[in-house]
Amino acid sequence: MDDFPFASRYLEPAGSPIRELFQYLSKPGIVSFAGGYPSPSLLDVEGIRDAALRALAEGSKGLEYGATEGMPALREALAGLCGTRGVRCSASDVLVTTGSQQAFDLLVRIFVDPGDPIYVETPAYPAAIQALRLAGARIHEVPVDADGLQTDALEAMLKAADPAELPKLLYTVPTFSNPCGSLLLQARREALVRLAITYRFLIVEDDPYGELTFTDEKIEPLHAVGLRLAGAANPVIYLASLSKTVAPALRIGWMVAPQPILRRCVVAKQTVDLCTSPLAQSIAAAYLRSGRYPVAVMRAAAEYAKRMSALAGALDDELGGTLCFSKPKGGMFLWAAYTETLDHDRLFHSAVDRGVVYVPGAAFYPNTPQRNRMRLSYAAPSVEEIKAGVRRLAEAFRSL
Amino acid sequence: MDDFPFASRYLEPAGSPIRELFQYLSKPGIVSFAGGYPSPSLLDVEGIRDAALRALAEGSKGLEYGATEGMPALREALAGLCGTRGVRCSASDVLVTTGSQQAFDLLVRIFVDPGDPIYVETPAYPAAIQALRLAGARIHEVPVDADGLQTDALEAMLKAADPAELPKLLYTVPTFSNPCGSLLLQARREALVRLAITYRFLIVEDDPYGELTFTDEKIEPLHAVGLRLAGAANPVIYLASLSKTVAPALRIGWMVAPQPILRRCVVAKQTVDLCTSPLAQSIAAAYLRSGRYPVAVMRAAAEYAKRMSALAGALDDELGGTLCFSKPKGGMFLWAAYTETLDHDRLFHSAVDRGVVYVPGAAFYPNTPQRNRMRLSYAAPSVEEIKAGVRRLAEAFRSL
Repeated sequence: MDDFPFASRYLEPAGSPIRELFQYLSKPGIVSFAGGYPSPSLLDVEGIRDAALRALAEGSKGLEYGATEGMPALREALAGLCGTRGVRCSASDVLVTTGSQQAFDLLVRIFVDPGDPIYVETPAYPAAIQALRLAGARIHEVPVDADGLQTDALEAMLKAADPAELPKLLYTVPTFSNPCGSLLLQARREALVRLAITYRFLIVEDDPYGELTFTDEKIEPLHAVGLRLAGAANPVIYLASLSKTVAPALRIGWMVAPQPILRRCVVAKQTVDLCTSPLAQSIAAAYLRSGRYPVAVMRAAAEYAKRMSALAGALDDELGGTLCFSKPKGGMFLWAAYTETLDHDRLFHSAVDRGVVYVPGAAFYPNTPQRNRMRLSYAAPSVEEIKAGVRRLAEAFRSL
Repeated sequence: MDDFPFASRYLEPAGSPIRELFQYLSKPGIVSFAGGYPSPSLLDVEGIRDAALRALAEGSKGLEYGATEGMPALREALAGLCGTRGVRCSASDVLVTTGSQQAFDLLVRIFVDPGDPIYVETPAYPAAIQALRLAGARIHEVPVDADGLQTDALEAMLKAADPAELPKLLYTVPTFSNPCGSLLLQARREALVRLAITYRFLIVEDDPYGELTFTDEKIEPLHAVGLRLAGAANPVIYLASLSKTVAPALRIGWMVAPQPILRRCVVAKQTVDLCTSPLAQSIAAAYLRSGRYPVAVMRAAAEYAKRMSALAGALDDELGGTLCFSKPKGGMFLWAAYTETLDHDRLFHSAVDRGVVYVPGAAFYPNTPQRNRMRLSYAAPSVEEIKAGVRRLAEAFRSL
């Protein structure tokens, strides 16, 4: 039966380009810069096991269904965590989601009708692009540079846009972006929020990496800027995740948004998965209560800083003049460009043959791929592996 | 900011009618027949805690991201569990989902374009109705009786249908249905699958309750009928869940479907939540491996049988002649009808005032509600609570 009556948008399902890389990751001895996940060696296994035992010590209580909004103890803990980042909210402003991926998908469900114009910083997180594409959004690419989303270019786009092409939503990772690792300048944060207020669109601020900072620089979340400039009419919806800071396997993300938005997301989530695993929520809440979180995050950030320096140093040594990049101030990713005259597919396969893998740049563009780019994540490999990986990458470049 | 640019289908979000009942459940001393969840006292807390410890004993391995399809160990265990039910499949035919609710939602995503005709046994599980409604499906109601979906009526509908109104999908809970508790007759199982083959639609067989059986009657899943009648062209997609048999808080469901369908569901799931909590999956896999599952399910089924008898007996004693119902042969629900001349809202509030709550029938109809019905779940209350609840319900009837 090859003729299943698939919905029109699924007649040609778009596979995630990153997913296709998975086949290479099992190659023995390969160094992977392709991941977007924390270093397994930095996960606080002991702390999470203790939290699981505490969550399960409450008898059957931890094993039942929970409210779609999330369990009160976790919403409370996440609101508290938000407070430490400068995102002011109460527990009732928090919706717990199955990873922040689900938070974005719920927003797409409640906001995006087919054909709706949506603005996305580009290059961008591929799963956000895919969610928008499957919803039938018309995606407009907003350019970025080493200081994040280019608000001047955005303003020009908005000014030139036909009213029907003005966006409902703009998606951005302003703090240590995926894939660029860039940090949006403070002046641009203000400009971006002002544009949202003027042109009446909502900003989705996706912030999975914000706490993994390598400097003492104070960062004001867009949500805080929005509250400062617009009060109750704050145009910023804040998304975050415990996947990069506690453990991916919990699948705990969350959203901070005004009540009319949260209410509709709850309606959508009822049909999507009813509630995020209450057991995972209880474990997350117990972990956050344990006080181990800030220590674990600081330890991870320090280690990522070291690995980033190792990667940047090795790239300078081995590929200076070939690869062009900015050193990230936090997060998990370094974004590098090379000359356009190379054969990108041959480069990638030559790298894989030599035992190193990265994510080719094309994965991060909704409409018009830039192919002479690569995303290198330094989070998972050790410093030694990073050095070996860069040597192999340099060989791959030389082989062409 | 009240003017959020919501997608058209979310301008008036439909709340789940069952959700609105939650406010009554916290009333002190209330007896709830409204739940659709297992008895907390029957959850195997110790076995799940042991499984969690085993899952977390593998160090960081249990805390990382997992494949969207599900973790190999769990897919293997679920395929094995399917085998014991007569659903023949291999691990690669299984997609792990965040509850079976998500499995249905993924199917709606990949199959349903707005306006598509979908057939649903009616009365039906409300969250299935809501998922279809939000996707813009045109829902056609297929009537049921005490022996499940009426295949003669279905055949008449199909014969009379304009070709554009022939369904893509039909949704049914053939074994101890929600809300009716009915068991689809074997002859109807064959007739239903033959109609799907003839009229070329897919059957979604939702089976969360099948193992909670009160008799020795051998039940052939629709999936097995489809395999027998159509081989590789089996028109039945099988959904199941550990929520009713292990613990709701794991949020582990699964789908067995042909590869072209699974592949598209995986694409959809990438944007929905990337993967179901790998920690919850590891716990579920360890629990299934422990050998405690069949024992726990048998114990639960025996207890539900006792509670069902208590409920049916008390209804006969207190409300014989007022309420009309069939005794379920398994599952969690008893579906009762009363005379249409009563004021349904007054009855409900009179019951709540007297300390008992049920789900009013209107919640289970996509288009034309039958209001003189109620769903009574006997799974969560004890036998003593059941008797007290029925006495209060009888008082509520007498008060009108």
